[in-house]
Amino acid sequence: MVERRTPIQIGEAVKKVMEYKLEGSTEFVSINDSYGRFLSDDLKATSDVPHFDRAPYDGYAVRSEDTRGAAQTSPVKFEVIDHIGAGMVSDKTIGPFQAVRIMTGAQMPEGSDAVVMLELTKEAEEADGKFMFVKRVHQKGENISFRGEDAKEGEVLVKKGTFINPGIQAMLATFGYATVPVARKPIVGLYATGTELLEVGDPLEPGKIRNSNSYMISAQVQRAGAEVRYFGQLPDDFETCYEAVRAAIGGVDIFITTGGVSVGDFDYLPQIYEKLGAEVLFNKVAVRPGSVTTVAQLHGKLLFGLSGNPSACYVGFELFARPIIRTMLCSDKPHLRKERARLEADFPKANPFTRFVRSALTIQDGKLIVTPSGLDKSNIIMSLAGANSLMILPGGTRGFERGMKVEVLMLEDQTGSDWPW
Amino acid sequence: MVERRTPIQIGEAVKKVMEYKLEGSTEFVSINDSYGRFLSDDLKATSDVPHFDRAPYDGYAVRSEDTRGAAQTSPVKFEVIDHIGAGMVSDKTIGPFQAVRIMTGAQMPEGSDAVVMLELTKEAEEADGKFMFVKRVHQKGENISFRGEDAKEGEVLVKKGTFINPGIQAMLATFGYATVPVARKPIVGLYATGTELLEVGDPLEPGKIRNSNSYMISAQVQRAGAEVRYFGQLPDDFETCYEAVRAAIGGVDIFITTGGVSVGDFDYLPQIYEKLGAEVLFNKVAVRPGSVTTVAQLHGKLLFGLSGNPSACYVGFELFARPIIRTMLCSDKPHLRKERARLEADFPKANPFTRFVRSALTIQDGKLIVTPSGLDKSNIIMSLAGANSLMILPGGTRGFERGMKVEVLMLEDQTGSDWPW
Repeated sequence: MVERRTPIQIGEAVKKVMEYKLEGSTEFVSINDSYGRFLSDDLKATSDVPHFDRAPYDGYAVRSEDTRGAAQTSPVKFEVIDHIGAGMVSDKTIGPFQAVRIMTGAQMPEGSDAVVMLELTKEAEEADGKFMFVKRVHQKGENISFRGEDAKEGEVLVKKGTFINPGIQAMLATFGYATVPVARKPIVGLYATGTELLEVGDPLEPGKIRNSNSYMISAQVQRAGAEVRYFGQLPDDFETCYEAVRAAIGGVDIFITTGGVSVGDFDYLPQIYEKLGAEVLFNKVAVRPGSVTTVAQLHGKLLFGLSGNPSACYVGFELFARPIIRTMLCSDKPHLRKERARLEADFPKANPFTRFVRSALTIQDGKLIVTPSGLDKSNIIMSLAGANSLMILPGGTRGFERGMKVEVLMLEDQTGSDWPW
Repeated sequence: MVERRTPIQIGEAVKKVMEYKLEGSTEFVSINDSYGRFLSDDLKATSDVPHFDRAPYDGYAVRSEDTRGAAQTSPVKFEVIDHIGAGMVSDKTIGPFQAVRIMTGAQMPEGSDAVVMLELTKEAEEADGKFMFVKRVHQKGENISFRGEDAKEGEVLVKKGTFINPGIQAMLATFGYATVPVARKPIVGLYATGTELLEVGDPLEPGKIRNSNSYMISAQVQRAGAEVRYFGQLPDDFETCYEAVRAAIGGVDIFITTGGVSVGDFDYLPQIYEKLGAEVLFNKVAVRPGSVTTVAQLHGKLLFGLSGNPSACYVGFELFARPIIRTMLCSDKPHLRKERARLEADFPKANPFTRFVRSALTIQDGKLIVTPSGLDKSNIIMSLAGANSLMILPGGTRGFERGMKVEVLMLEDQTGSDWPW
């Protein structure tokens, strides 16, 4: 007896899930821990940068008007009245034909309005002090980095939801963010179901396989930016599963199970959802792999019933759970980034269903090319190792040939897309 | 007085550094912690996958010879003698015209050599037991996933040095790697030098700026896959710096300082290297920014003297320190991945030096395009925030125009390149 399920299209399925997305929330972490997190607030300039006029080169700070008439044949002589490095402030005010020797990054002394680069001066030590000669006219403001040149106080420099990279770390430090507002990592609860599952440390037994989905999904959860709470493995037994799932849901933001969602005789997730009183958003999607992916909601909390098949599990997570996680990380582009690439393989057989083929996306002379990362039988985990993308082959009545352009979802990318369907 | 330094070309500089690269070493971590690390050994199949013949679909396991003569008009009747799900093993041996109801993933029962998919059968409950009818001939081996079909015991599936992604996590679990051999993270010691530096939590003071380089480099170190040991900030004072540096070097694999390497009056790193007895590999490179980057070695340990200028510091780390880190992470492609992209900006002014321009690499209809990520003054940290790449503009006598092809180093990529110069 095969249960009848009505498949829905991928775009519609994702839309149904996204109706139950949750807002991201903020936590404050030390700047030492903020790399790789997501900003939960705009990064604003808390001061001008630079916040004082400074020398961009090693040289001499002078009054530009005193260089008037300076030339190769008639150098102008300046008295050197001070010597400062970055971080030092001269207490002298520069008068006519006076100069302060100044190093890169130091604050311009009072009275000065130009810097003569070291290479363009000649120094002289005389009995009554230090002097230097300038052989070229300098304009007012020459060789000065002016206050506010790089950023103005109050400016929004990086938007909320952005992945914090090394450059942003530098900006956070520049603006004094000793603690940084980042999106709290959603907690993703995870149970693997299946009587066939052995623990990773167990020796093999007839008919049983080691649980690989939990480790794969845990890594996918981390890659998406969330935190996993792994509850363990469950046998295909209705009561055991029901009690375990019921008890686990409360403490997490998102709940994932692997296995038990198909129409097999020992697939109990549908009944568990029913007994929990959860509303099933869909239990069949017109895609391969992952067609039996089931998503339900219980009091607004999403329950993802991913297939026990590793490929289907992988794809189901990326298509449905990832955008929810990224939304909670304040992203306005929560879905996988979609680009176009040249197909480097033939798929002669037409398939009525849209396929998501685990692929290796590479670059050849500046152009994206994509090849399947392994044989594409849906139970082959090997092809997942080399996958950095999912190639989309729309369902229809014809196959696909090498050289065609296809759409590709990028797995290892922080850019995202707002709505790829 | 300007010290004369002889610049060397970038490729030569990198080569000099790579002569002092260290071997990676192994540590064993729980599979729960291996995502995002680098394999320090080949990942081998410790068993066949699958390790038993199994059903890829829900259906009935039968002897194919018994389906001979089955047709739409003359269905063949089978006695259903058992019922198994994944993880269960039937203790029955299938005899003539007997079948075992079998779910996806379950081990093929003794005597069976084909699976009839559920959809192609008709079931019947009769007084003397359960029966089902098959209306089509099945071949020997039809609908079976055979032992070793996906992987053969002993096969090398993933090579040493590979970044552990979610798919590899699944493979590690499948093959029973409860602990995983990963490359030990190199420890990178870090000191920021500069009298101008304030701590990130400090209010601004005249002439001083907050230390941003340490946070930026720390993030770059983490992105490269290593661990940072941050020792703090040092003023531009020879004795203080010398003692601090001397004391810190011993406990780390790689040592980085920021600032103090230029030819300014308060740049003490060159003298510190001299007093330490370190051999300076180079102290000037024909690139912009980062020309004063200095690398020295002391008893085979590398000391990276990066510029205090944020952009130069950033670029210097990626070009020189990253490949050393990646080598210690067992990669044979330790350098930044290099690709070609279409330039989307004009650089009309020729520059005698090769420039590394902080850039945003994007994709347009399957083609890479690259634009500078900000104004390219070397003291502007703002452009670092949007940078996912460094565009290479070779030095020479002409400028560059929109539409030209340029080479680009990718910063957020695990692929790497073996030798980009």
